[in-house]
Amino acid sequence: MEREVVEAVARLRRTVADLHRELTRYELVIWTAGNVSARVPGADLMVIKPSGVSYDELEPEAMVVTDLHGTLVDGELAPSSDTAAHAYVYRHMPEIGGVVHTHSPYATAWAARGEPIPCVLTMIADEFGGEIPVGPFALIGDDSIGRGIVETLRGSRSPAVLMRNHGPFTVGRDARAAVKAAVMLEDVARTVHFAHQLGRPDAIDPDAVDRLYARYQNAYGQ
Amino acid sequence: MEREVVEAVARLRRTVADLHRELTRYELVIWTAGNVSARVPGADLMVIKPSGVSYDELEPEAMVVTDLHGTLVDGELAPSSDTAAHAYVYRHMPEIGGVVHTHSPYATAWAARGEPIPCVLTMIADEFGGEIPVGPFALIGDDSIGRGIVETLRGSRSPAVLMRNHGPFTVGRDARAAVKAAVMLEDVARTVHFAHQLGRPDAIDPDAVDRLYARYQNAYGQ
Amino acid sequence: MEREVVEAVARLRRTVADLHRELTRYELVIWTAGNVSARVPGADLMVIKPSGVSYDELEPEAMVVTDLHGTLVDGELAPSSDTAAHAYVYRHMPEIGGVVHTHSPYATAWAARGEPIPCVLTMIADEFGGEIPVGPFALIGDDSIGRGIVETLRGSRSPAVLMRNHGPFTVGRDARAAVKAAVMLEDVARTVHFAHQLGRPDAIDPDAVDRLYARYQNAYGQ
Amino acid sequence: MEREVVEAVARLRRTVADLHRELTRYELVIWTAGNVSARVPGADLMVIKPSGVSYDELEPEAMVVTDLHGTLVDGELAPSSDTAAHAYVYRHMPEIGGVVHTHSPYATAWAARGEPIPCVLTMIADEFGGEIPVGPFALIGDDSIGRGIVETLRGSRSPAVLMRNHGPFTVGRDARAAVKAAVMLEDVARTVHFAHQLGRPDAIDPDAVDRLYARYQNAYGQ
Repeated sequence: MEREVVEAVARLRRTVADLHRELTRYELVIWTAGNVSARVPGADLMVIKPSGVSYDELEPEAMVVTDLHGTLVDGELAPSSDTAAHAYVYRHMPEIGGVVHTHSPYATAWAARGEPIPCVLTMIADEFGGEIPVGPFALIGDDSIGRGIVETLRGSRSPAVLMRNHGPFTVGRDARAAVKAAVMLEDVARTVHFAHQLGRPDAIDPDAVDRLYARYQNAYGQ
Repeated sequence: MEREVVEAVARLRRTVADLHRELTRYELVIWTAGNVSARVPGADLMVIKPSGVSYDELEPEAMVVTDLHGTLVDGELAPSSDTAAHAYVYRHMPEIGGVVHTHSPYATAWAARGEPIPCVLTMIADEFGGEIPVGPFALIGDDSIGRGIVETLRGSRSPAVLMRNHGPFTVGRDARAAVKAAVMLEDVARTVHFAHQLGRPDAIDPDAVDRLYARYQNAYGQ
Repeated sequence: MEREVVEAVARLRRTVADLHRELTRYELVIWTAGNVSARVPGADLMVIKPSGVSYDELEPEAMVVTDLHGTLVDGELAPSSDTAAHAYVYRHMPEIGGVVHTHSPYATAWAARGEPIPCVLTMIADEFGGEIPVGPFALIGDDSIGRGIVETLRGSRSPAVLMRNHGPFTVGRDARAAVKAAVMLEDVARTVHFAHQLGRPDAIDPDAVDRLYARYQNAYGQ
Repeated sequence: MEREVVEAVARLRRTVADLHRELTRYELVIWTAGNVSARVPGADLMVIKPSGVSYDELEPEAMVVTDLHGTLVDGELAPSSDTAAHAYVYRHMPEIGGVVHTHSPYATAWAARGEPIPCVLTMIADEFGGEIPVGPFALIGDDSIGRGIVETLRGSRSPAVLMRNHGPFTVGRDARAAVKAAVMLEDVARTVHFAHQLGRPDAIDPDAVDRLYARYQNAYGQ
């Protein structure tokens, strides 16, 4: 590896390790489930969580580096069992720098029913730009999950897809943005679940959705 | 700024920073969403959270000071994207010294359905003096949200308003009282949600509501 | 006060202060709501939480001592606004040494509907000996709440009563037992709520309830 | 005891004590309810939690050792009131090295209704290999609970059984695997509960369940 790639890998090992703590902080994962990855800028590489390792033990050194077909390049542990799906996303969505997978309970409940989350909250318009779509049922073991993610996200502004009977995947320009989308997804999945338990909220008008999305994507933050 | 205003600003930077911890303690906010502000006594100024900054980084120095039209007066960061709504409340409700905005999930579910929370608990009578009202759907970017808050609160004893498809705003004589209202709002929004899932509780008699409200507002605490 | 009463008061100030931490640990209370008290053995006195004080500030010295009519005997703060209800219980139930009041959300949802919690779990049979009863709607300010608690508990083996439109009170031979009942109440209120959301569980046969109750009350623990 | 058994007991006292912290971390238990045990390799012994002791006090020395009929062999405290059920499992399922019992709320709600959890999530197929079965209503005090657990688990690939009107028991090749099953059980019990509140998800095709189960049992982790 070139020196700047080596430095980027070292930096991203720490970033990816730290971001896993957001998954436990917001209770998006249990035990060893769930994973965050980051694309290594300037290289066909990614940094990802190892398979089946406790969240208490996710130090930067435990992270693993693979190429964009999921083959181990650096690290002592086997990569996440979801590595193929992450790799597929990086190969087919060059604008994406981070991928997150969880089984967060409210988002997964929508995924189990195969029901998109309707755009009934300003927060959904802001972050997801419309309803949050459902992806196909796909078995682990080949490119089916990755292909399902990419095909669903291409038809939407949403950085989140609800994979049927499975759980959510989120993407972002970097790993932090993908984690943010995972956190916001569970939050809106929960609030709309609550709203639907006692009625049906009105959808936000599509023009208002467009205005909210444009503003939030461009004007929010520092 | 006069010396006493400078001192008040310094004190309120700490108060407002600290009060944001109550929002995370009670899980009223995620990521960087939500905000607390305080009016500066004796000046047309407010202290408010910066936009898009993590709750782990909300030290007093990070808070920003604006005038009551939301223009930055002091601080290194851009103010909250909800600053215009806070400022409108301070301009039009001189008795109000603190404003809080969250997307707390149960309150936001009532807001999504546009359904007021009925006064079926003594705690609602105590703190809110009756049902908790719904405000209009309003887009961010001008005075619509602030106007919706003020017009709704003027018709009610409640320090909380459920802004439709958006989430709650609460007010108080100071920032701590507004945060207390936000915490109690989510608690009663949740309990009444649970109650409604399996039936419909009886409303408390209006005379009893008045007696509970009068006692709690005057006799509770030290 | 005699020396042994002084010592008992000192010990109970610490016990009662510490037990309040169980209320926050199990999320039975928010802000300053909820309270624990203990009868002082050998004296017509009780130790209780002060009114409107934050759970972060509940040190032993902050606890207050009143007689069994709620009149302050020792302490610098005003006693809990629920003192009259605690005092009524101690005056009329000599076997009771501890009282707890919370607005824990699932128990309060049953209370809001005025619906007893049916005995459909072995844990309910163990601790409550049958269904958990509902007490009347009663206003704060005189003996109405205390009388409602005592009259309801006298007709039941349950150490918990769901005061209508208000919330639960629990009792025990000492303050720790009353806190344990409050924790177990919220747990079973929640589980039966979940069970009822998707159907109706069978009640446990009354003979089995009696056997479970007898065993748990006599054989459990050290 | 032979030296290697003494060493195994010392090691398992620590393991079992530590694993109880996972029960509180994931909020599967309250107060002193719930228990973990481990079979001692090479001896007809088990290490189990004492009865009625707080989770704050579960140090290795507090754990107790019994034979496989529940008779105390080593330790200063009385063993868990559920010891007979654990012992029965170890006597009749020689491949099992760990047993866990909780009253985790969502799993217990399914148990209260006597309704198996359908296999509608890939995580259920992975860990449980199909629907999660219901065991009979059984009273504590003889072998009824143990027999109900063993008879139900023998007809299933699931390491978890929902004992009717009571709560879940889980098993594993060791105590850690049984705790993992208890954590995953509550997670899927919750997610499927949420899914069923707003509809009915499609079951996963049995062939896909078999493939997911085979892969997860053989290829996941390090």
